Amino acid sequence: MGLVVQKYGGSSVADAEGIKRVAKRIVEAKKNGHQVVVVVSAMGDTTDELIDLAAQVSPIPAGREFDMLLTAGERISMALLAMAIKNLGHEAQSFTGSQAGVITDSVHNKARIIDVTPGRIQQSVDAGNIAIVAGFQGVSQDKKDITTLGRGGSDTTAVALAAALNAEVCEIYTDVDGVFTADPRVVKKARKIEWISFEDMLELASSGSKVLLHRCVEYARRYNIPIHVRSSFSGLKGTWVSNEPQGDQPMEQAIISGVAHDTSEAKVTVVGVPDKPGEAATIFRAIADAEINIDMVVQNVSAASTGLTDISFTLPKTEGRKAIAALEKTKAGIGFDSLRYDDQIAKISLVGAGMKTNPGVTATFFEALSDAGVNIELISTSEIRISVVTRADDVNEAVRAVHTAFGLDTDSDEAVVYGGTGR
Amino acid sequence: MGLVVQKYGGSSVADAEGIKRVAKRIVEAKKNGHQVVVVVSAMGDTTDELIDLAAQVSPIPAGREFDMLLTAGERISMALLAMAIKNLGHEAQSFTGSQAGVITDSVHNKARIIDVTPGRIQQSVDAGNIAIVAGFQGVSQDKKDITTLGRGGSDTTAVALAAALNAEVCEIYTDVDGVFTADPRVVKKARKIEWISFEDMLELASSGSKVLLHRCVEYARRYNIPIHVRSSFSGLKGTWVSNEPQGDQPMEQAIISGVAHDTSEAKVTVVGVPDKPGEAATIFRAIADAEINIDMVVQNVSAASTGLTDISFTLPKTEGRKAIAALEKTKAGIGFDSLRYDDQIAKISLVGAGMKTNPGVTATFFEALSDAGVNIELISTSEIRISVVTRADDVNEAVRAVHTAFGLDTDSDEAVVYGGTGR
Repeated sequence: MGLVVQKYGGSSVADAEGIKRVAKRIVEAKKNGHQVVVVVSAMGDTTDELIDLAAQVSPIPAGREFDMLLTAGERISMALLAMAIKNLGHEAQSFTGSQAGVITDSVHNKARIIDVTPGRIQQSVDAGNIAIVAGFQGVSQDKKDITTLGRGGSDTTAVALAAALNAEVCEIYTDVDGVFTADPRVVKKARKIEWISFEDMLELASSGSKVLLHRCVEYARRYNIPIHVRSSFSGLKGTWVSNEPQGDQPMEQAIISGVAHDTSEAKVTVVGVPDKPGEAATIFRAIADAEINIDMVVQNVSAASTGLTDISFTLPKTEGRKAIAALEKTKAGIGFDSLRYDDQIAKISLVGAGMKTNPGVTATFFEALSDAGVNIELISTSEIRISVVTRADDVNEAVRAVHTAFGLDTDSDEAVVYGGTGR
Repeated sequence: MGLVVQKYGGSSVADAEGIKRVAKRIVEAKKNGHQVVVVVSAMGDTTDELIDLAAQVSPIPAGREFDMLLTAGERISMALLAMAIKNLGHEAQSFTGSQAGVITDSVHNKARIIDVTPGRIQQSVDAGNIAIVAGFQGVSQDKKDITTLGRGGSDTTAVALAAALNAEVCEIYTDVDGVFTADPRVVKKARKIEWISFEDMLELASSGSKVLLHRCVEYARRYNIPIHVRSSFSGLKGTWVSNEPQGDQPMEQAIISGVAHDTSEAKVTVVGVPDKPGEAATIFRAIADAEINIDMVVQNVSAASTGLTDISFTLPKTEGRKAIAALEKTKAGIGFDSLRYDDQIAKISLVGAGMKTNPGVTATFFEALSDAGVNIELISTSEIRISVVTRADDVNEAVRAVHTAFGLDTDSDEAVVYGGTGR
């Protein structure tokens, strides 16, 4: 048996009871003969409480100090978890990100991992210990300052350690049973996916699925580390994310992996743009200079009569105000008519590598939306994804309709036209 | 102007308001032209809360992990303090004990400092920053594990850094105005001491005065670092502890520095010990083997008729049960009559280097107790201290009587026989 890396999120270690439950699970893996390295997040609301404290002493906390503050959270959870494991009669040692060799750049609050030198961790597990590592944190290569990895940082720590330690698998324990064919809160008949490729998982992650973040999956793909996403509460098998199915996993990938939705974006439309070279470039340069990441971009065919076109794009709602301000400044130069801003939209995405070779997927997708009375406002596609923008009010109905149309509902008998069901 | 080290305790940084108040005080020192290094404890009850969490996951938390846990407390306070200072427009950087170069042995929960290599701190202040250092913590020399220094650890961190950085002074900010001639809660007329020698302060600290711990004063004496104990709330001048008075401090030391009392001890009497060589050694070897520190030891002259004597000693109440158990085991070998255990005692100590050369101090001390109707049960003296054990119920009255008798009361007109008043 080889080495496994397990990661437990804040909701799994929200209180002393949670820590003791997780400790038992970790000890089981050790008893099964594995070397075990555990990455743990801060307990429950700890991080939010620390952020609140920071806001009380400074309106804009400095990055270096903010990271120093936040990393106290994992320090608490990892030490408690090590104690709980030792209390079960097994040896455990906790390590900060720095001690674990998580080397990052110097961009505080969203540092990137540039190297992992896990010598102390390897030594610790070779000596028979369970090693507990603080997620979300590292130490900067040049200044030796404490850094944090930003959103999804603990998952990324886990995958990075798994890669550096040549782990068999990186198990991401969370509060849901795995990755589903749609958000189970919206689609009651959503099905747990047993295996999904890195590529499809990446598309789901960037289309609004929140179980795994894009960054962590990307890292796992680059180093080919199988991820097993599962619940720390239920003990059930979860979802495997990997290059190829392994063991008793289904050998054939589904045509459609799942339906994701995202209501965190807004739509900006630049109306009446002169249809000549360079205008679109000017618009998106202005957006880029404001350091705003955009998602979908659509340009209509220009009306022959006017020579004017409309350009629409989506972006995080939180960036809306900044984008409009940046565009207003370009108005004189470009000479467009007006700007429209709409934050009552939803994006619905269908993801699956199988759609590349299966004609008719797009038609079925649009038919399902049409039958449900949902209007499509924007369309964008990749090789393995189709995304549409609809009214925010329509999102739940739209997701359910598409989920059913592609035979993803868990009760249906191996389904309609595109019967690959993800199992 | 040189470098000053300031230390703020948990009560000074109990909440966001406290942190902002302390930040202002630190910035003042910087504005006055000093290089400033700040040592800070965990906020208010943080440490107790962490200890409580540990108890919930493990009845006997492992030392290494317990230290990892507790050090999260200072990490929070130091980062917040640095943020608050930066918010006032001054540069600040926080450092863990490890980053600050506080190197210790490997005895978790009560590590001893064996070296301080403050290169990063010196660099930081030379670059114009205020350096904030986590108190109470270090890193072990051999294993590179996080350690804590035990009780009074933050004060010791401050003095050790002051020594390593050749600081002008180590300012210990606390919630009282300084060191008093007696506990002001007991003696309303207690007087703040303006200057006291290391030696007298050491005796006061080991006699029950709680403002400074023995360990920190001992460190300061060894490296000759003047300590200024003062309030973080009032801004008043406090008490200087040093080898020699400096500047406008009183040039002559008082005959009597103060009266300390201690109600945390118990008394054990071994009754009817055969008065022959080796019996006392056997008794105290048994106590030492149980790793119990004792304080006063008194042996009566043996009664000529019986050849038996009584041996009494005091020890922390918390060790009482263990001591009795250890002594019971020696009973057969020694052949003493019985053991008496009494935890309703108080120790009252009079401290002052002047008593060496002033005859009559002992007589005045005993007369004062006698006049107050307080019975003396044990007596023990050093060159600069007289201690007696009395009933616990008598302690307040006894302290007040002695304080008055030596002219220490703040209203009295330069006092009676021993007029040196500590100013």
